[in-house]
Amino acid sequence: MYNFTFDVSTKIFFGKGQIKNLSGEIIKYSNRILLVYGGGSIKKNGIYNAVVSNLKENNIEFIELSGVEPNPRIESVRKGVELCRVNNLDGVLAIGGGSSIDCAKVIAAGVKYNGDAWDLVKNRKFIKDALPIFSVLTIAATGSEMDVNAVISDISRNEKLGTGAPSTLPKVSILDPEYTYSVPKKHTAAGTADIMSHTFENYFNVNNDAYLQSRMAEAILKTCIHYGPIACQNPENYEARANLMWSSSWAINGLLAKGATQDWSVHPIEHELSAFYDITHGDGLAILTPHWMRYILSEDTVDKFVEYGVNVWNIDKNLDKFTIANKAIDLTQDFFTNSLNIPKNLRELDIDEEYFDQMSVKATKGNGRINGYVTLNPDDIKKILINAL
Amino acid sequence: MYNFTFDVSTKIFFGKGQIKNLSGEIIKYSNRILLVYGGGSIKKNGIYNAVVSNLKENNIEFIELSGVEPNPRIESVRKGVELCRVNNLDGVLAIGGGSSIDCAKVIAAGVKYNGDAWDLVKNRKFIKDALPIFSVLTIAATGSEMDVNAVISDISRNEKLGTGAPSTLPKVSILDPEYTYSVPKKHTAAGTADIMSHTFENYFNVNNDAYLQSRMAEAILKTCIHYGPIACQNPENYEARANLMWSSSWAINGLLAKGATQDWSVHPIEHELSAFYDITHGDGLAILTPHWMRYILSEDTVDKFVEYGVNVWNIDKNLDKFTIANKAIDLTQDFFTNSLNIPKNLRELDIDEEYFDQMSVKATKGNGRINGYVTLNPDDIKKILINAL
Repeated sequence: MYNFTFDVSTKIFFGKGQIKNLSGEIIKYSNRILLVYGGGSIKKNGIYNAVVSNLKENNIEFIELSGVEPNPRIESVRKGVELCRVNNLDGVLAIGGGSSIDCAKVIAAGVKYNGDAWDLVKNRKFIKDALPIFSVLTIAATGSEMDVNAVISDISRNEKLGTGAPSTLPKVSILDPEYTYSVPKKHTAAGTADIMSHTFENYFNVNNDAYLQSRMAEAILKTCIHYGPIACQNPENYEARANLMWSSSWAINGLLAKGATQDWSVHPIEHELSAFYDITHGDGLAILTPHWMRYILSEDTVDKFVEYGVNVWNIDKNLDKFTIANKAIDLTQDFFTNSLNIPKNLRELDIDEEYFDQMSVKATKGNGRINGYVTLNPDDIKKILINAL
Repeated sequence: MYNFTFDVSTKIFFGKGQIKNLSGEIIKYSNRILLVYGGGSIKKNGIYNAVVSNLKENNIEFIELSGVEPNPRIESVRKGVELCRVNNLDGVLAIGGGSSIDCAKVIAAGVKYNGDAWDLVKNRKFIKDALPIFSVLTIAATGSEMDVNAVISDISRNEKLGTGAPSTLPKVSILDPEYTYSVPKKHTAAGTADIMSHTFENYFNVNNDAYLQSRMAEAILKTCIHYGPIACQNPENYEARANLMWSSSWAINGLLAKGATQDWSVHPIEHELSAFYDITHGDGLAILTPHWMRYILSEDTVDKFVEYGVNVWNIDKNLDKFTIANKAIDLTQDFFTNSLNIPKNLRELDIDEEYFDQMSVKATKGNGRINGYVTLNPDDIKKILINAL
């Protein structure tokens, strides 16, 4: 196991009605905040009203930044930074999923930075401080509620990049599974795929002596496989929503990654798809993952796939190891397409080969390769994309 | 899943040589501390020197309280409180396992309390504040390095009680697996049993819809089963020591308990054994656990045992459910006695029936019963103790 620091101090209020604790926590840090959210859905489902009336209980003033995009853009960040400065705000509260929370994080850091916020996205080392960040989660997916990470896009440059620093960890997050009842089937499925992909990125790593972390990863995968389809079929199943929501936080807050390796493979490729086509992140991940798995399966990697197939899919461990591995990959693909009803290939999302060369190079972030579980150069990436067509 | 708050802000430095970070963290909170430890082993294995020389780097002054007992006593706590007051100390650093850390926690709380520290053990609600607490862990067992809990004994009254509050959560803990290389076989085994028992106490609970938590519990159990014997056989196996150490923290810091139920069964019974006979806590737990399992196995509980047997011990799920359950219990007992070489019964620890009536009543803490996975009254408890003889 590698050396690491684990430092996840986000205070989580989990369960029905936990919104009642929000402003009592915020007031410990801030009394004039920026309220960051996306479309109008939180106004329809009552979450907006619940937040606002709770803020009023502790006389917390707020300015709003609405309309944050599903793949949040640097323009929204810049707008938020400006609003905070002009109005002298001292905290940022996101209501929503990863998009709103990620946007809030970079706004909070941007306020403390002398320069354009895109610098902080390009290089996380520039983030030295941030306003206190709070979140009210409305979809189980990115885990942004309990980690430092944020992904921001600059569509004008077809760039979608991840950033984050200790100061962008939320202080407090409210996780009420009932708030996800109104998440449509499509996004429930994509969110589940996103949680699973975070888990895969941690699970398939070269440091196999992080045994505990591997078993924890399997715990999360089994939970997603069990409850993803239930939540899609029955959106108001509390048990399913609760288990998915809590899984989203643990898939990416460091529990699985720390001590293992943290070099991701599928996310950087998907980020190119989203940057060029603005598709739903989880859909892209679900489509790419089985093709990435099949592409990297080899004598060197087969044992990890056997571990995955036996422990997660309960495949008979006495079968031939490549049989187990291929079966596990088939089951993964079948789960995404048939149990979660996510499109099976890129063509269904109207994506063709046009930008594959460009994407394959950009996915390597200037390194010439992705140093993931198996090193991928642009040629490899292009082949995976073509297989996923 | 039940509502809960998850708030575990302990900063963990995990891995080889992490002691280098200790004083740089302490200095953020304290510059005159109480150093709490047990016997002389940390002087022999070099950990004491490593700590002291690191403290000097940041000019942190310290006063020592050594000789903390394996089941730490209230007298040591009182002595520590007095030392802090007389010397005007502003932090408490434990070096050791659960005993030293638990003692440090109640000292830290005692300094902030006007009255006898035993009040804080009898009733955790009296803990309103504490000095900052730090730990350098030297054995994987209690998880005290990353939770609020402390167990303190008053041998004069045969009482061993648990306490804790948000303020008794360590600020920083150093987890260097190499520091556990010198833990003798017997205590490596008992520590592993302790981690497993914490996990069982959380795993066997009436709220079966905390599915993620159950799968996480299985992850920890599998890790202990895999690495406990390896660490006993080969004390300097880093991989085994690291996995056990990190498991100890997660078995009891809330990850498994929050959202499920938290009513424990075997610990309160074992605490009576330790209170009357001062035995090693983990030994008592390992002896009692299989007997508790067998005693509570019934038509009502069998499904949970099947889950345990299939998921943790890989028992064929097509067998009859009571066959699976009994096999799982047999394997558990066999693991403790044959793989970890822990005494099989209480007689081997020179315990007889003399105090069983008294213990059975005291284990219920005045409630007339233990409200665990299955409710146990003093009659039930006595039967379990007799079975364990």
